[in-house]
Amino acid sequence: MSTSANNHDIEEGLAFQPKFDASGLVTCVATDAGTGDVLMVAHMNDEALRKTIASGEAWYYSRSRKSLWRKGETSGHVQRVVEMRLDCDQDAVWLRVEQLGAACHTGRHSCFYRAVAAGDGETRLSLVDADRLFDPKAVYQK
Amino acid sequence: MSTSANNHDIEEGLAFQPKFDASGLVTCVATDAGTGDVLMVAHMNDEALRKTIASGEAWYYSRSRKSLWRKGETSGHVQRVVEMRLDCDQDAVWLRVEQLGAACHTGRHSCFYRAVAAGDGETRLSLVDADRLFDPKAVYQK
Repeated sequence: MSTSANNHDIEEGLAFQPKFDASGLVTCVATDAGTGDVLMVAHMNDEALRKTIASGEAWYYSRSRKSLWRKGETSGHVQRVVEMRLDCDQDAVWLRVEQLGAACHTGRHSCFYRAVAAGDGETRLSLVDADRLFDPKAVYQK
Repeated sequence: MSTSANNHDIEEGLAFQPKFDASGLVTCVATDAGTGDVLMVAHMNDEALRKTIASGEAWYYSRSRKSLWRKGETSGHVQRVVEMRLDCDQDAVWLRVEQLGAACHTGRHSCFYRAVAAGDGETRLSLVDADRLFDPKAVYQK
């Protein structure tokens, strides 16, 4: 099969053929199904993908801990999958989820609680939607 | 500085300190500022980040072509940045954009035009919002 025919199959076909990177991962974006806000960007290996599809709750693969991880297993802040989509080249996943509690380990609803802007020749961050919904010390360190 | 103090600075500080991976890239998610739909997942190197911030239009780094890439430079389908955010560990960027035309090289508004679902013990894809807004052959191959 030519590369071009193979690309056509991956882009236009209805067969699930996730394209894992050299580490065996695809990138996953989770958004709040109600607001459209991006909650987090994480990774899934084959097992995380399968468990997410089978359970209807988000599973990821933690590159830092090198282990499979059910979102919310420590905090209780699970993600119920409303819809799962795959991108054109099948190497990225979009989960529309109902987020219980907060997605970010810092206690915020979303991991994206800082905006980036240029100012006075320097790039700076400013807080946006940065209220904490939980105290990370109380949740993770007891 | 201890790792923990450094992490605190990266997560809670207002200094722009993007954390590039081994290839010098951060992951970028672009969403439609109007609908919240995820349009695409791509990558930025340091230069793409700087050009995006300075110009207010999305620049990426193409891993396949190994080159900087102004979104829409061939198709005219540029992305005007409404807001740019950075995640907790500063290795992922969220762009809320106004997408002119379509984001996907296949001609669709979004690269995520297929939903994933389990059925009969097998994972299958189904088309969602998959209408083409342009003919990729006419745009890219003339």
